[in-house]
Amino acid sequence: LHMDLKFGKQDGLIAAVVQDYTSNRVLMVGYMNQEALDKTLATGLVTFYSRSRQKLWTKGESSGNHLKLKEMSTDCDMDALLVKVEAVGPGVCHDGYESCFYRRLEGDTWVESEPRAYDPDAVYGGKA
Amino acid sequence: LHMDLKFGKQDGLIAAVVQDYTSNRVLMVGYMNQEALDKTLATGLVTFYSRSRQKLWTKGESSGNHLKLKEMSTDCDMDALLVKVEAVGPGVCHDGYESCFYRRLEGDTWVESEPRAYDPDAVYGGKA
Repeated sequence: LHMDLKFGKQDGLIAAVVQDYTSNRVLMVGYMNQEALDKTLATGLVTFYSRSRQKLWTKGESSGNHLKLKEMSTDCDMDALLVKVEAVGPGVCHDGYESCFYRRLEGDTWVESEPRAYDPDAVYGGKA
Repeated sequence: LHMDLKFGKQDGLIAAVVQDYTSNRVLMVGYMNQEALDKTLATGLVTFYSRSRQKLWTKGESSGNHLKLKEMSTDCDMDALLVKVEAVGPGVCHDGYESCFYRRLEGDTWVESEPRAYDPDAVYGGKA
């Protein structure tokens, strides 16, 4: 089935939208290549391809805050994934927030729209 | 503020996750460049940059099924947008479904997980 996905449009990567399966909050957007998808399906723990570090990255490998796969959908063009998860821990974002989307546009300014859920220094020890 | 967004990581584009602001369903993923974002904010109607057609594309310009901007957030890396919308019409997907994410992974097969919300031929007249 993986072959049906259109990895070719973007250098072998497709966008993966991560959504909390109970609250339906969108937690983050990552990118997967074929290998990341295979590992996600084999382990049940969401794994991305890090564009900045150019390697596979299982969410929570540093923090312990894994994303447990609950459900996966693809879109009409088969070039994006919607990944519903159970998010382990107080927050997904390495900045300490429940969701990476913690800044909302108000007028013409991005404003932090919620308090931190945890202290990122305590979890990531400064290596963010 | 637009300048803060990291358009440079992906050829001038950032992913824009479109979410229904009442149901919280993820409806689609599109891409915006600076111009698409400016037009979205100026008009209140969500506008993407079409990677296949290589031009701006206001959702609903063919179908009338616009996406009215309700709220916009950005993520920790400022390289993705979460766009909450009021979706006009019965469905966002040009295949006739409420959401573009109408295929769910069951075992190793993508399965249509919901009925069509409208007849796409009647809306798009075969030009999809």
